[in-house]
Amino acid sequence: MTKPTGFTLWFTGLSGAGKSTLAGAVRDTVKGRGHLVEVLDGDEVRANLSAGLGFSKEDRDTNVRRIGYVARLLSRNGVVAIVAAISPYRDIRNEVRRAHEARFVEVFVDCPLDEVMRRDRKGLYAKAIAGKIGNFTGVSDPYEPPIDAEITVHTQFENVEQSLSIIVSWLEQQGLVSPSIVNVESARS
Amino acid sequence: MTKPTGFTLWFTGLSGAGKSTLAGAVRDTVKGRGHLVEVLDGDEVRANLSAGLGFSKEDRDTNVRRIGYVARLLSRNGVVAIVAAISPYRDIRNEVRRAHEARFVEVFVDCPLDEVMRRDRKGLYAKAIAGKIGNFTGVSDPYEPPIDAEITVHTQFENVEQSLSIIVSWLEQQGLVSPSIVNVESARS
Repeated sequence: MTKPTGFTLWFTGLSGAGKSTLAGAVRDTVKGRGHLVEVLDGDEVRANLSAGLGFSKEDRDTNVRRIGYVARLLSRNGVVAIVAAISPYRDIRNEVRRAHEARFVEVFVDCPLDEVMRRDRKGLYAKAIAGKIGNFTGVSDPYEPPIDAEITVHTQFENVEQSLSIIVSWLEQQGLVSPSIVNVESARS
Repeated sequence: MTKPTGFTLWFTGLSGAGKSTLAGAVRDTVKGRGHLVEVLDGDEVRANLSAGLGFSKEDRDTNVRRIGYVARLLSRNGVVAIVAAISPYRDIRNEVRRAHEARFVEVFVDCPLDEVMRRDRKGLYAKAIAGKIGNFTGVSDPYEPPIDAEITVHTQFENVEQSLSIIVSWLEQQGLVSPSIVNVESARS
């Protein structure tokens, strides 16, 4: 049995920046290239692994460490583990990175606060500003952008296809994802 | 990329019955046959996923559900996920079983209470009887043996090699583990 290449693709960024959308788009593309893929989405993983935890720094750190533990187990067994989690603290992201045996690829989903606030698709920023939600990243809690992310996408200026293309091209160049399979038959016809 | 067969092998039984020892023995054998394997040991997983949880039924259930979630992700991606956890409650084991996409194989590590108390390798039973540890399975907390475990081993009467052989034979018969590879060259010489 050949062991496929597993790695972790870790999306970090503000709520509403586009992490989950991009995680889903990368999943579909990478699955289509024959890889095993799991998406660990912040909200879903929180329900499965961290019910009862809140949004203090300590609880956020615990939640991110748990997601990191699962991503580490999956990636070292050949799975492409795609994480979409705000994961606002740099030191904990780096701690998870260091614990990895497989490659850890950080994707900074960079979108300015005023833009995610303007979109506010879930209405969360309005609630946070009104003080109805506490410890809200970007409003009442810090967000520490990566200094050394492998990939940065700017979702204020790029559409999903453009950001996806930047990510997949990088993964192809690093040999982590198979290049798109050319269909010889259709190329001939 | 061919997807290898993943499944979950779930060891349940009293503290000291031999779950971790057997989990390690099965891991070595199955790895030797070319499978991807992860052992999720109760104590280690508790530290990674359930720090802060205690041993009430509710907390135990949460811990077992989290282990089950990780085993489910690994097994559906071709990994042999070997769990060694007391997991004393039948309904939660069955809930984890039902949530699985890959095969879920329950191994009841059956060893009578008087025998694990007699051994008491970690000195925990003595402490539990003295009231120094509360909610201790078998002493001050229930253990619900499986009714329908795929495999039962009796560690009071079998040594590790015998129990291991019973487990691996069953897995081979079910086509979950490749049979031992015969070395043709050495067989000829």
